[in-house]
Amino acid sequence: SGVDKGVDFAQYFCTYAYLYHQKEMLSDRVRMDAYYNSVFKNKKHFQGKTVLDVGTGSGILAIWSAQAGARKVYAVEATKMSEHARALVKANNLQDVVEVIEASMEDVTLPEKVDVIISEWMGYFLLRESMFDSVICARDRWLKPNGVMYPSHARMWMAPIRSALVNQKMNQYEGAMDDWYSFLEETKSYYGVDMSILTRSFDEEQKKYFLHTSLWSNLQPEEVIGTPAIVCEIDCLTATVQDIAEVRSQFSCKIHTDARLCGFGGWFDVHFRGRVDNPAEEEIELTTEPSEENSTHWGQQVFLVQPPRNVCRGDSLNFSFVMKRTIENHRLMEIELGCEFKQSSGEQLQPFKKTFCIE
Amino acid sequence: SGVDKGVDFAQYFCTYAYLYHQKEMLSDRVRMDAYYNSVFKNKKHFQGKTVLDVGTGSGILAIWSAQAGARKVYAVEATKMSEHARALVKANNLQDVVEVIEASMEDVTLPEKVDVIISEWMGYFLLRESMFDSVICARDRWLKPNGVMYPSHARMWMAPIRSALVNQKMNQYEGAMDDWYSFLEETKSYYGVDMSILTRSFDEEQKKYFLHTSLWSNLQPEEVIGTPAIVCEIDCLTATVQDIAEVRSQFSCKIHTDARLCGFGGWFDVHFRGRVDNPAEEEIELTTEPSEENSTHWGQQVFLVQPPRNVCRGDSLNFSFVMKRTIENHRLMEIELGCEFKQSSGEQLQPFKKTFCIE
Ligand SMILES: Nc1ncnc2c1ncn2[C@@H]1O[C@H](CSCC[C@H](N)C(=O)O)[C@@H](O)[C@H]1O
Ligand SMILES: Nc1ncnc2c1ncn2[C@@H]1O[C@H](CSCC[C@H](N)C(=O)O)[C@@H](O)[C@H]1O
Repeated sequence: SGVDKGVDFAQYFCTYAYLYHQKEMLSDRVRMDAYYNSVFKNKKHFQGKTVLDVGTGSGILAIWSAQAGARKVYAVEATKMSEHARALVKANNLQDVVEVIEASMEDVTLPEKVDVIISEWMGYFLLRESMFDSVICARDRWLKPNGVMYPSHARMWMAPIRSALVNQKMNQYEGAMDDWYSFLEETKSYYGVDMSILTRSFDEEQKKYFLHTSLWSNLQPEEVIGTPAIVCEIDCLTATVQDIAEVRSQFSCKIHTDARLCGFGGWFDVHFRGRVDNPAEEEIELTTEPSEENSTHWGQQVFLVQPPRNVCRGDSLNFSFVMKRTIENHRLMEIELGCEFKQSSGEQLQPFKKTFCIE
Repeated sequence: SGVDKGVDFAQYFCTYAYLYHQKEMLSDRVRMDAYYNSVFKNKKHFQGKTVLDVGTGSGILAIWSAQAGARKVYAVEATKMSEHARALVKANNLQDVVEVIEASMEDVTLPEKVDVIISEWMGYFLLRESMFDSVICARDRWLKPNGVMYPSHARMWMAPIRSALVNQKMNQYEGAMDDWYSFLEETKSYYGVDMSILTRSFDEEQKKYFLHTSLWSNLQPEEVIGTPAIVCEIDCLTATVQDIAEVRSQFSCKIHTDARLCGFGGWFDVHFRGRVDNPAEEEIELTTEPSEENSTHWGQQVFLVQPPRNVCRGDSLNFSFVMKRTIENHRLMEIELGCEFKQSSGEQLQPFKKTFCIE
């Protein structure tokens, strides 16, 4: 697919080689509980079965699969973290069941097809990192026709929000521009060079950085001012790379409080349902929605609306949404987000349209 | 030299494509004054001459060279910053003199040899980023036999210091390890997996991060507790890549205050002297030494001594120093630093030996 492996390692995989980073994921209780329960409350999917863990990291999901009774677990990891996974498997006395393989999933040849593929592949706003591509590749090559995906379904969500972030980022942007103008004066007076021709480009760069890049945030439920809408749904058993490489969607939602609309929050959930002809005994959900108590390391992505708009209870918002991968880095995304307002008051609000990066 | 261009761009060049980053360098008054004076107080080196600016960035050094009277300036820049440089050259009406070339220096073919090579190639502790390699390459191919290098000389310095950083970093390291032990307990009790086998690797990772990686610092003169020593000197006209790829050195210094030795500070200076048979009219120095008023964006690199040692006025320190490039990234460095103490009191202090990364 034209991706340079060395570059991909330098930009993406490298961080996963740190225990510190794996520990962050292993300390996310919402994430851990969901995967733990998905395995141990559905042991029938694992007992005596063969399992593939795509991107095993520390090895945790492979170890749980083995503890739940799997006959054989293939645990594939691209980075040197594989060595730690292997040590951990051994220390937990599962080396006869779990086989750790250090390789890119795309390059691996397994001795057999598997009954279950388990993987924690979700990035910010679900698809950042594009790791689900590797899961699809594994599924198409190594999952038995009646095999089960863990998780089995995924959804992207979006909701209108209020947030102090918009003022904060606007202030930072304006501060950067003030700095720029003093800089221009100094460079002209001390060093005899007029740099004002670069003002427009600098302004664009700063706008992109402060205002047109989505922000990680741990939103509180009361910051959500309308009904969340589903952006898209993915069936992990049938989705293709084409389906996720470009996501186009139209959706709408209703404002439920009079408020200052400062942006849109984006998050995801995944479900562990087994498959229609072999359903889970207990269906488990992992959600990264705004929550007071159950926040995750994914948080939410915030897309700022600048300037903010006053909206009222009952207003309808109609969205158009296109998410593509950036040309420079296929693991990062660009989102064209449009929103039209249908106000209950009958007044007209200027429609919103902006392109954001997820970095 | 076995370097993957795509990876090098992703890891190194990419940052220079931002005006924000160029502005940081252009706002460093110590740096700017030194280069400005080196050009305008030595116009004879530029008047009617041909100049090559290696890594022109915003184009500033090329523009000054033209303003000082150069006949022709070749301004080579690997990143898209070249487009801004070209706009700036035009806005300052120098497009007939300055030719901006977007390319890696290593790939450029010039129509003629040049009288002067000017470049701002210095990284943290002088050699980080390994950009001087590109200047050497340019010099060997494009400088006339009697050509001049700007700057002409460079030196690395090191001195014993006291610093609050050592306690701060030690606290952070200990905090990280405390966290780890709670994490182990939780993972065992909630999720049934014993991860204690990874403790040693996690500990090494955290030690490397907090204690064995040099730290950027803006040292104050009073934090320096001994006479600075020269680690190595580079003649920019004759140095080879081999000379700088591995720097081995022995040097010593004297403690001048009773103090707690917390580490060693490393910095550099460069000089603009022209060449022996064509010396500068006014010699200019650019130093990044600890300074109250004239600090630079380079600051100093601090190598921590943990635990700190009590040293006394008059004690002698004998250093052994080996700096190599890391295997993973030729633009980053690894330093083996040894130090033996000759105390004026006659007491014995344990010699110090540690390997540090510069990242
Ligand atoms: N194509 C690929 N082949 C192999 N490993 C991959 C991969 N893409 C991503 N990974 C690995 O997948 C991991 C995702 S993070 C999840 C780690 C672990 N399964 C857990 O749940 O804690 C990372 O360690 C990353 O290095
Ligand atoms: N081999 C190479 N070929 C071309 N440009 C290079 C290079 N190595 C580094 N550079 C560029 O050199 C610049 C160094 S920063 C200095 C910029 C400018 N000369 C100034 O003094 O303000 C960066 O913009 C970097 O992209």
